[in-house]
Formats: sequence, structure tokens, C-alpha cells
Amino acid sequence: MKKLGIGVAGIGRMGRIHAADLVSRCARAGLACVYDADGDRAAALAAQLDVPAAASFDELLERSEAVAIATPTGTHAELSVAAAKAGTPVFCEKPVSLDRAATVATLEAVEAAAVPFQVGFHRRFDPDWVAAAERIAAGELGEVTLFRTSLRDMNPPDPSYLAGSGGFFVDVTVHDLDVARWLVGEVVEVSAHGTASDPAFAELGDIDTAVVVLRFANGALGVIDNSRGARYGYECSTEVMGTLATARIDNPHRHGLEWRTPGAATRDLVHDFEERYPYAYAAELDAFADCVRTGAAPRVTGRDALAAFDLAVAADESWRTGRPVAVNQGVTP
Amino acid sequence: MKKLGIGVAGIGRMGRIHAADLVSRCARAGLACVYDADGDRAAALAAQLDVPAAASFDELLERSEAVAIATPTGTHAELSVAAAKAGTPVFCEKPVSLDRAATVATLEAVEAAAVPFQVGFHRRFDPDWVAAAERIAAGELGEVTLFRTSLRDMNPPDPSYLAGSGGFFVDVTVHDLDVARWLVGEVVEVSAHGTASDPAFAELGDIDTAVVVLRFANGALGVIDNSRGARYGYECSTEVMGTLATARIDNPHRHGLEWRTPGAATRDLVHDFEERYPYAYAAELDAFADCVRTGAAPRVTGRDALAAFDLAVAADESWRTGRPVAVNQGVTP
Amino acid sequence: MKKLGIGVAGIGRMGRIHAADLVSRCARAGLACVYDADGDRAAALAAQLDVPAAASFDELLERSEAVAIATPTGTHAELSVAAAKAGTPVFCEKPVSLDRAATVATLEAVEAAAVPFQVGFHRRFDPDWVAAAERIAAGELGEVTLFRTSLRDMNPPDPSYLAGSGGFFVDVTVHDLDVARWLVGEVVEVSAHGTASDPAFAELGDIDTAVVVLRFANGALGVIDNSRGARYGYECSTEVMGTLATARIDNPHRHGLEWRTPGAATRDLVHDFEERYPYAYAAELDAFADCVRTGAAPRVTGRDALAAFDLAVAADESWRTGRPVAVNQGVTP
Amino acid sequence: MKKLGIGVAGIGRMGRIHAADLVSRCARAGLACVYDADGDRAAALAAQLDVPAAASFDELLERSEAVAIATPTGTHAELSVAAAKAGTPVFCEKPVSLDRAATVATLEAVEAAAVPFQVGFHRRFDPDWVAAAERIAAGELGEVTLFRTSLRDMNPPDPSYLAGSGGFFVDVTVHDLDVARWLVGEVVEVSAHGTASDPAFAELGDIDTAVVVLRFANGALGVIDNSRGARYGYECSTEVMGTLATARIDNPHRHGLEWRTPGAATRDLVHDFEERYPYAYAAELDAFADCVRTGAAPRVTGRDALAAFDLAVAADESWRTGRPVAVNQGVTP
Repeated sequence: MKKLGIGVAGIGRMGRIHAADLVSRCARAGLACVYDADGDRAAALAAQLDVPAAASFDELLERSEAVAIATPTGTHAELSVAAAKAGTPVFCEKPVSLDRAATVATLEAVEAAAVPFQVGFHRRFDPDWVAAAERIAAGELGEVTLFRTSLRDMNPPDPSYLAGSGGFFVDVTVHDLDVARWLVGEVVEVSAHGTASDPAFAELGDIDTAVVVLRFANGALGVIDNSRGARYGYECSTEVMGTLATARIDNPHRHGLEWRTPGAATRDLVHDFEERYPYAYAAELDAFADCVRTGAAPRVTGRDALAAFDLAVAADESWRTGRPVAVNQGVTP
Repeated sequence: MKKLGIGVAGIGRMGRIHAADLVSRCARAGLACVYDADGDRAAALAAQLDVPAAASFDELLERSEAVAIATPTGTHAELSVAAAKAGTPVFCEKPVSLDRAATVATLEAVEAAAVPFQVGFHRRFDPDWVAAAERIAAGELGEVTLFRTSLRDMNPPDPSYLAGSGGFFVDVTVHDLDVARWLVGEVVEVSAHGTASDPAFAELGDIDTAVVVLRFANGALGVIDNSRGARYGYECSTEVMGTLATARIDNPHRHGLEWRTPGAATRDLVHDFEERYPYAYAAELDAFADCVRTGAAPRVTGRDALAAFDLAVAADESWRTGRPVAVNQGVTP
Repeated sequence: MKKLGIGVAGIGRMGRIHAADLVSRCARAGLACVYDADGDRAAALAAQLDVPAAASFDELLERSEAVAIATPTGTHAELSVAAAKAGTPVFCEKPVSLDRAATVATLEAVEAAAVPFQVGFHRRFDPDWVAAAERIAAGELGEVTLFRTSLRDMNPPDPSYLAGSGGFFVDVTVHDLDVARWLVGEVVEVSAHGTASDPAFAELGDIDTAVVVLRFANGALGVIDNSRGARYGYECSTEVMGTLATARIDNPHRHGLEWRTPGAATRDLVHDFEERYPYAYAAELDAFADCVRTGAAPRVTGRDALAAFDLAVAADESWRTGRPVAVNQGVTP
Repeated sequence: MKKLGIGVAGIGRMGRIHAADLVSRCARAGLACVYDADGDRAAALAAQLDVPAAASFDELLERSEAVAIATPTGTHAELSVAAAKAGTPVFCEKPVSLDRAATVATLEAVEAAAVPFQVGFHRRFDPDWVAAAERIAAGELGEVTLFRTSLRDMNPPDPSYLAGSGGFFVDVTVHDLDVARWLVGEVVEVSAHGTASDPAFAELGDIDTAVVVLRFANGALGVIDNSRGARYGYECSTEVMGTLATARIDNPHRHGLEWRTPGAATRDLVHDFEERYPYAYAAELDAFADCVRTGAAPRVTGRDALAAFDLAVAADESWRTGRPVAVNQGVTP
């Protein structure tokens, strides 16, 4: 079976991860071509990975069976629509857009074109979370009573990144909001609290630490804590407490090595999402390739991305107003 | 050195723990006498532990160098005041009273009598928390940016217990509120969210699951999750994230035994607070005995108990109103 | 129920542990009196623990319902016999004697006097090992196929201690040999290998590191590794592999605190046997008190001590000759 | 950079792992072609992986820049020599041969042909062991005093496999012997003990459980335990104790998911070497590709394989004779 030839558009950090995974970690998806607005950058990576560089997005579409869009956020919607109109399946990094109307328009366009469209919520493909989700879906956990998750970066991003990030909740919390919906169900109320422990964030009117409380449709509570600067490492750990069992996913280590010196046993901590998720980024592209081949619906649809985005916007509003914000996830856009 | 002879008043669950610890776990405090409103119950325990039973609280005071009050909550204030007036040092289970004015009056009475008065926030004496507190106090953690703690019972208490419990936040969350003040500092805002996953609690107008968000005077955020019924076991685990380091205290196991069967490694989980805290209850009484001997101030004063109670009441108000509640811990009662 | 009044003879390190446990950790055994050849030392400890000091071993016997003998090894046999002849139950630190004939004579004397006699193999009373032993005895592990255990001191003892220690295998390995017999069954062959990683041991004709291979009567293999100087801490961990399950006992930590700094999570390691065994030393005395009261046979008899001693001597011989040594544990002395 | 095109000869279990890794896990090595004595089997795998199947080993050599030999053991030597004579770099599964003379002749042939020759001791490429080895090499561990390692299969192989396995020590222990040499240094004495816990092995004159004690040239002791049937899972864990620090490598889990039910926390255990080593098999082929490209010497040479084989044979002799066997690793064959 030939690997599905995926073209990667945008070779910043995520684009490079996707390209490298398509070359050496994916089993059913391969790298067809790379494209970047910066042609030299594309050419350099293409040479390194032994694939062609496309001079334009259109050329990328021509050379690829499907595309992975990892360009700056502002172009996701436009490129997704262009690909869809060309009949090319699209894997798009989150968020589809920072503008809700543009997001909805994009979803409508890809739905109209009837091409597979998957959004980059990688945690849905990580073996740890998949193992938990399967047991929850099988009823082994019973009814969820409490959902708790931590997502923390080791070090804050460059200030230049923050400007186009869409804000803390849309940029960071959105991942946890997607996982909350996936593992527990729809959310009906969001209460968000934030602070800037680093004054640099306060100066930008932004925060670097947040706690978001969720109320689910089934009555359960959820709590998310997020940080831009945990300092000790990157953290993504989760508990789902149920009436029959509780699932707990803890952070992995880079190595299985414990180093013992007098009175102390030390293990390493992962530094970033690449180290935290050694499998998920490749697995999401293989799963996307499977959907393209079989016509099955992607595990994370554009509608899922919209729902998580809406919750993030509600969190932002709650943080700004100091009030809980009701959410009605059942309503169509 | 002779052990300080402590008389235990009230031999329900906590009174029995204290009595047994004074007999076989404390190094500097011993059991002088036991008293209970149910004289037969007192006599039976006294015989078992080879100490005299007092026929009245006054007799207990006469036979003891200090008292530990573990009677039903409604009598804590009155007995504390009686002991103080008799010049007897008092260790009192929390809460001092479910009535704020009665609490304040009690504190004023013991302060006027100038007897040592310590309240039963045992976690301040657990080796895990003490180790964390010492490193935090030494500045090794830097500035706290996020405080996160879980306190969960394995199974809900008997409904009969709930009636006199003072409600979820005063009964359960108050322990975490004391730890928050101890490890991080004063709290200026409390936002509480609750739900009844078990309909029996809803029928009583009570909850069994809560998330409480704290804003500290130093700007840090805190988050507490609590449950009356985690099912898998008793949980009390904490993270304190700082600018230099992060402290993480996880639950112990009963045994250091891992049992491996094909494909599975299983460890036990503790079932209740007695198993979770093999040292803290004895340590708090030894520390109390030290204070009585040396005249040093107890590590947990009546004012600490009042502050935690006020935060619990604020949480209750926040839960009922759906609004954050501002707290001014600096004001004297 | 009154605690059984135990007199402690010899207040070196183990004697002090026993005395302190009898004062503040045992539930059914208490401290009646202390005795030491150095009367001033005894008087000082007696004052500290608020018990009388005996001027002679005979006075100790008079003042005690039972005795715990923790004097220098050379006097264990003589004092045990004296106590037995006086009809006083004896708890004796291992070894009974470094001389086999003296050991046998002592066992015969206590057996003739029909007093309870228990030897200080504390691991038989540690909750971790007890939990494993119970499941093994219940058949949950199936047939044992491999037994593996590590016993390592953090730092070597003072050279002055080594002279009277009976040698590495009698002093260190003997504990593992007792556990091997307890958890698996009789041993039929011992092969020992040793080395002196620290030249100071080589100069004394002794070793500080050893590996001992056991062949059990049921055909299973066992392996013990021992060290006088693991440097990182004190280690006592065990695996018992069976046809149905495997039990693994790992070392505890002093605290449940994990300290995280950039890229590193650090936990403490225990430093010595007191820290490794927070319960076992008190539990063995409580169990001994139970035997005295009920007349039940102690869990570790003099015959067990003799069997472990014989295996240690066999290990010593194997190390010296470079040959496996056959053992016939069924033969009476 | 184009991936080095490696042809895989022999598509039993290891050959399939190598082929799949070359398709989807290696970054610098790729799959050029597959060959198997069973042409249909080769054709099926070739179709599945979208590469050509070679009708003969010669055709495989023609179609490949290098070969990975994973055929039945009896053909390793012959095929290695054939490839070397054709000037093709060789990655060969262990053992090179069960016959020492044939092994030496093969090494001489590949040395004469001056082609890169690497043997499949994958643990040298696993991140856990590499991390330990780097710190040991940097002197952070000080002098090694004790080396301890466990290698255990979950379930015994099919009896048909055993006939051609070369025996327990050559088949199983050889991996630990290579690691011992790598992490600690040359071995001067081997003492092996074995047993058949499963009578099926005894009937074949073979064993399924062994303990091997090593004495290193630097005076340190080492101990290896091995099993064909640990039942609970596949185990490969190691301790290296030194004068400054101790390295401990424990087994990974398949998932970072802990599942909690009342009183029990359960984690999964890996079942076999593929699950235990998610990276090592791909990493060893990438490293081999690097050597082919740069001319650097492989990290595991034919001489290393010979040394480990000699130690395994010494272990076998020790087991049969019941005596320690001296080894002189310095002597050239």
C-alpha cells in the first residue's frame, strides 16, 4: 500500500513537525511536497527531506493527494477553502480562524465540497488519551462526576507570538476544552479566572495563568488549569473521575532512567509538546490518511473545532466580566 | 521526661484516633483519661486502653494536664471555654463552632485565659506537607503562581452526619483553605462551584462535588477540588507551582507492594484519612504537648481556624449566589 | 488492656530503637525498664523515657514481664538462657550467637524452659512483606520460579563494628536468607560471590559487596545482592516471581513530596533501616507481646534463626572456596 | 538527504520489525527491497509496504545500498560474507553464528572487505540505556561497584524455536552480557545457575530461568537474571551502582494511563520486546545508516558480538559444570 502523499503548507514549528513525521514516523501517510511563503525556507527543508518544494499553494495542491495546513493562523480559512474547492482533503492546524464567521464560512465551504476536513487536536490521537477514551466509551468509568486537567507550557512564548495568538483561552485552553467535550460531553457553563504572574503579560492586557471551571450538560463539574510558564517543564495531565472508576493520565518522562545520588532520586521532565507527545502528531496524520482512503469521518471535525472555539471565547468573556457564561452547544451556527 | 497527660473528651471516630495515638503513637503526649457523654462507651474504651474514665468533663479536667476536645461540633465552644477558664490547655477539633460569633467569643475566652489553644488542622503536621512548607518558607520555590489541591473522600458519609456538618465547604473545603493560607498566604477572593452527582445530596439541598477558585493577595490563583465520593479511595494531593520550583505531594499507598498479573501492575489505594495520614494525628498532639510545655504558640491557632472558617463561609456564599466573593482577611473579628 | 512490660537490655542503636518504640509506637507492648552494662548510659535513657533503670540484668528480669535483648552479640546466648531459666519470655536480636554450638545450646535451654523466644528478623513484621507473604500463602502467586532481593546499606559501618560482626554473610545476608526461607521455602544450595569495592574491607580480609545465588528445594532459583555502601541510600527491595503473579516490593521514600526544578523531578531516598522500616520494629514487639499473652508460637523462632545462620555460614564457605555449598535444612542440629 | 536504501533479508519476526521501521520509523534509513527464502511471503510483504521483492539474495544486494540480515541464524554467516564480498554494508541480527569458528571467519571476511558491519544489539540504541551510558562515560557515576539486570520474556517461545536457538545463554543472556561489557567493562569470570521451572524445558535438556554472576576486570560484581516465562509481562530493567551515583532503568508502560477502581490503581505492563523498545530498533538502523554514510565505526561491532558470544558460552559451561569459568576477553580469536 502506497502512503498517501500529503503536502505540507507552512513550515514553522508545527509544519516542520508534520513534515518530519510524514518522512519518518507515519505508516500510511507520506510527504509529497512542502510549500512556504518563504520560498528559500521551503527549498531548504525540501532538500533536507528529499521531496520537491512547491512554488505556490496551487502547485502544492497539484503535487499532493491531501494537504496539511500549518501556515500562520490568519491564512488557515482561505487556504482550507481553496483546497476544498480543488477537491483536496484538508488537515488544518487549529484554530480555523480567530473570527467566528470566517470559521463558519470555512466549514460550510468544506462541507459543500465534501472533502475530508480534520483539525489538529492531536491529543485525540495520543495513545494515553485514546486508551482512556475507549474505556470511558465502553462504560467502564460509569458516569463522569469530575474532570480535571492541567496544561502548562514550560516557558512563555516570545511576545511577538502573543499578538496573533487570539488570546490565552483561544490559544491554550482550547485544547483542554476539546478534550473535555470528547471525554465527558457538552459544556453548558464556563467560568474563567486569570492572572498575570509575569508582569510582561499584564502590560499586554493578557494573562499567563488561568483556572477555568466547566459545568457539563450531565451535571458534572470540570476544572482546567493552564500556565504559560510552569518553569519545571511541560505538563499535560488529566483525571476523569467516575462512579465506577477514575482514569488518571500523568506526564511521561523523556527517559526511563532514574539517577540516584545520596538521598535523592531524580528523573527528567519533558520540556515541550513535542517531547510530551512522541506519537500523537504522527498518529493524527495517519488517521487523516485513513479517512481520506476510506471516506470515514475524521475523529475531529470542523464542528468540533468550532465548538471548542466557542467555549474558549466564552471563557474569555467570563474572565473579562467576572461572571459565569452560559453556553448552548446544541445550537447550529 | 514524662508524657503530657491529655484527657480526650468525646470518643467518636476522631476521639478514638486521638486516644489510640496517645497510647501508642505519640512520643511526648500520653493518654490521661477519657470522657464521653455516653458513660458506658467511655468506660469500655478506658478499659481497653488501661486508663481511667471520667464521669464528667470537669472530672476529665481534674485528671488531665490538657484536653483534646472531639465531642460533637455543637459543644466545642462551650467545652473549650470551660477548659480555658479552668486553666487547662485545649486542643480542639475543627470547627470551633458553626456560628461565627460563638467562635469569636471562644477565641476571646481562651485568649483571656492565656491557655494554649490549638485547632485540629492535622495536615500542618504531616511530614509531606511540612517538608514542602519548609522549602517554600526557605524561598526555594520562589513566588507562588498556582496552588492546586484535591481532597476527596472515598464514600459519602451517612446522611445523619450531614445535618450537623455545617455544609460542604465548612466541613470539607475548610482543610484545603487552611493549607492554602499556610502555604501561599492570605486569600482575597473566593469563587465556588458545586454539584450533587448523587441525587441524595441534591434532596438535602447539599452538594457532593465542588471546585473552589482562590485569588491570593499576592496575585496567584488557587484551585481546590473536593468530593464526598471519589469511589476509588481517599485522595489528598497538592501542587504548589512557583517561579523557581514546583512542589507536588501525591497520595501514599498503604503498602509498598506492587502485584503483577499478566499485563497489569496493581497497587493499593488508601481508603480514608486515617490511612492517608499515618503520622499527622499523632504529630499534632506531640506538637501541642510541646507548646504546653514550652509556652510556644501553637502552629495552628484559633485565629487560623477562624480565617479558614470565614473562607469556607465565603465559598458557601459564592456557590449560592454564583458570584465571586471578596474576602478581607486582614480585618480583626 | 495493660501493655506487656518489656525490659530492654543493651541500649546501643537497636536497644534505643526498641525502647523508643515501646514508649511511643507499640500498642500492646510497653517499656518496663532499661538495662545496660554502662549504668550511666542506662540511667540517662531511663530518665529521658520516664522508666526505671536496672542496675543488673537480674534486676531487669525482676522488673519486666519479658525482655528484649539488644546487647553486644557475644552476650545474647548467655542472657537469653538466664532469662529463660528465670521463666521470662525473650525477644533476642539476631544473631543468637556467632558460634553454632552456643546457638543450639541456647535454643535447647529456651525450649526446655518453655518460654516464648523470638528473634529479631523485623522484615517478617513489615506491612509490605506481610502483605506479600499473605498473598503468596493464599496461593495467589502460584509456584515461585525466581526470588530476587537487594539489601544495601548507604554507608559502611565503622571498622570497629566489623570485628565483632561475624562477617558479611552472617551480619548482612542473614536477613535476606530468612526472608527467602519465609517466602519461598527451604534452600538446598548456596553459591556466594563477594568483592571489596572499598580497599579498607580488603585489608580486613572482608568484603563489602556480595551476590548470593540460592537453589530452593522446590527447584526455584533465588538471588540476593548486598552492599555495605550503596551511597545513594538504604535499599531493601524484593521480587518474587511466580507462575500466576509476581510480587514486587520497592523502597519507600521518606516523604511523599516531589520537588520539580527545570527539567528534573526529585524525590528523597531513605538513609538507613530506621527510615526504611517505620513500622516493623514496633510491630515485631507487639507481635511478641501477643505471643507472650496468648501462648502462640512466635512468627520467627530460634530454629528459624539457626536455619538462616546456617545458610549464612554456607554462603561464607562458598565465597571462600569458590564452590556451591549444599545445605540440608531438614536435619536437626 | 535521501534515506539509505536498506534491503531486508528474512522476514520472520525481526525482519518484519526492521522492514516496518524502515518504512515508518527511521529518519535516515529506508526500505529498498525485501527478500525471503519463501518468495510468496516476501511478495506479500513487499506489496503491503510498497517496495520490490527480490527473488534472490543476490538480487537483494543489487537493489540495496546496504542489507539487514534477519534470516534464520544458520545462514547469518554465509549471507554476511556474501554481502561483504559484494561490497555491501551489513547489519546482521545476533548471533553471527552458533559456531565460534564460523563467527571468527565471518568477522575476518567483513574486515577484509572493509564494509561496515553492525550486529543487532538494539539496547545500545535505546534512549534509556544511551542516557545512562553517556552519564557513566562522563564519569558521573564514579567507579561501578555492582551491575544488576533483569531480562525476562513474558511467555516461553514455541518449542520448535528452541532447537535452533543455541541454548538459553546464547539466545537470551547474550543481550545482557553485551550491555554489561558496554556499561561496565570486560568480564573475567562467569558463574551461571539455571533451572527449568517448566518441565517442558527440562525434557529438552534446557532451562527457562537463570542467574549469572559476573566478575569484572575492575573488581566489580554483576548479576543477571533471565527468564523465558515471567508471565506478568516482558521485563528489561537495570541498575548500575557506582561510587558517586546509581543509575536505575525501569520498564516503561504502554500507556501513561492509571486506572483506579475501589482500593486499586492499575497500570499496564509491556508484553514483549517490541513494546519494551519503541525506539531502539529504528534507532539502530538509523545509526547503521549514519555509519555507512560517514564511514564511522558502528557502535556494536562484530568483535563485540564475538565477545558477548564467548561470555554466553562460558555461562553455558559454568551452568553445566557447576563451576565459575574464567574468561580472557583480551585475547584475539
